[in-house]
Amino acid sequence: MHPRKGTTLHMTITENPAIRNGVDTATLFATLDAIKADPEIAKFQFRASNRWISGAHSRSTLDGFFGAKQEMNHAVAHVADADHPAILVGEDNGPTPVEYLLHALAACLTAGLANIAAARGVNLTEVTSTFEGDIDLLGILGLSKDVRNGYQQIKVTFNVKGDDPEKLRQVVEQSRQRSAVYDVLTHGVPISIDVVAG
Amino acid sequence: MHPRKGTTLHMTITENPAIRNGVDTATLFATLDAIKADPEIAKFQFRASNRWISGAHSRSTLDGFFGAKQEMNHAVAHVADADHPAILVGEDNGPTPVEYLLHALAACLTAGLANIAAARGVNLTEVTSTFEGDIDLLGILGLSKDVRNGYQQIKVTFNVKGDDPEKLRQVVEQSRQRSAVYDVLTHGVPISIDVVAG
Repeated sequence: MHPRKGTTLHMTITENPAIRNGVDTATLFATLDAIKADPEIAKFQFRASNRWISGAHSRSTLDGFFGAKQEMNHAVAHVADADHPAILVGEDNGPTPVEYLLHALAACLTAGLANIAAARGVNLTEVTSTFEGDIDLLGILGLSKDVRNGYQQIKVTFNVKGDDPEKLRQVVEQSRQRSAVYDVLTHGVPISIDVVAG
Repeated sequence: MHPRKGTTLHMTITENPAIRNGVDTATLFATLDAIKADPEIAKFQFRASNRWISGAHSRSTLDGFFGAKQEMNHAVAHVADADHPAILVGEDNGPTPVEYLLHALAACLTAGLANIAAARGVNLTEVTSTFEGDIDLLGILGLSKDVRNGYQQIKVTFNVKGDDPEKLRQVVEQSRQRSAVYDVLTHGVPISIDVVAG
């Protein structure tokens, strides 16, 4: 069995931790110190396993991952469904795959924002954001060679409330500069695909 | 009110539709014909709205979208939570943002596979797949300038059962070539971020 919960990189905090924006900043800084002392801790592998259900409907399980030099699991195995809406010949049993890209970007920028603000002593009271991705389906349908398959652009708007607006803007900018998902979506990543058929 | 369900681009099918792999191929081909006749139908915009909850925990709603020259909504408003696990100073209220990237890729390739196989008359009996994304957190933590923020590579393995294995392989390859998420993740997309602070 892999550890399911409560595992942290730092076990020696005895004082009441400094919680800001819901972030345990003592643990955050202790984690940074632990990684500085042993960079191998920072090597992670995240995983998904997916099963086709019917038509455009499939379900992924997000559970096991590797990090901090050990195999781990989420507190519970997270499950996510995806499908196409009726107008795209699906049954709408979940968001579309491309909407999950927007959600991933939203969640990454927002988590970074909360963590960075906490580390800088900046208080947040409310953070909302909207994401718009433009896509021309002539690409994926193979009806035009001049149209790409994916989004042509993504437009993001953040509404952030809390301390000094200029500090809030700087925190959003720093979150963008340190976002894993923003990096992948703007710069791309090598993907290899193996197929076992039959 | 925007149409919530049952809206398709083709309303004149009276015969029993040809269902293969759970895909209504008659509607699929009718949709292609409708788009060929009026390419404006193919211009879509997908959207997410996100609200920060606490720490690394946020929640996205995926509901309204534009497509087929009209504002539409999903059959229900889909909701997705994201968080960091305990070892990354979160509370594990959902998958991590980077796991959602893997799920988006899984769901897009799998939906494409089912649709393309159906269009080609290829029967599927089982499709499972695994996704592994390697990431070194020295990047997002700002501890190394030589390490990127996002995944360094993603490795995918598909297990596909059904008709002739060679046809199944060709269907997976065609799905890769026509996948919106694969395109975005391998080639990147321009992202603009506006901030309203205070």
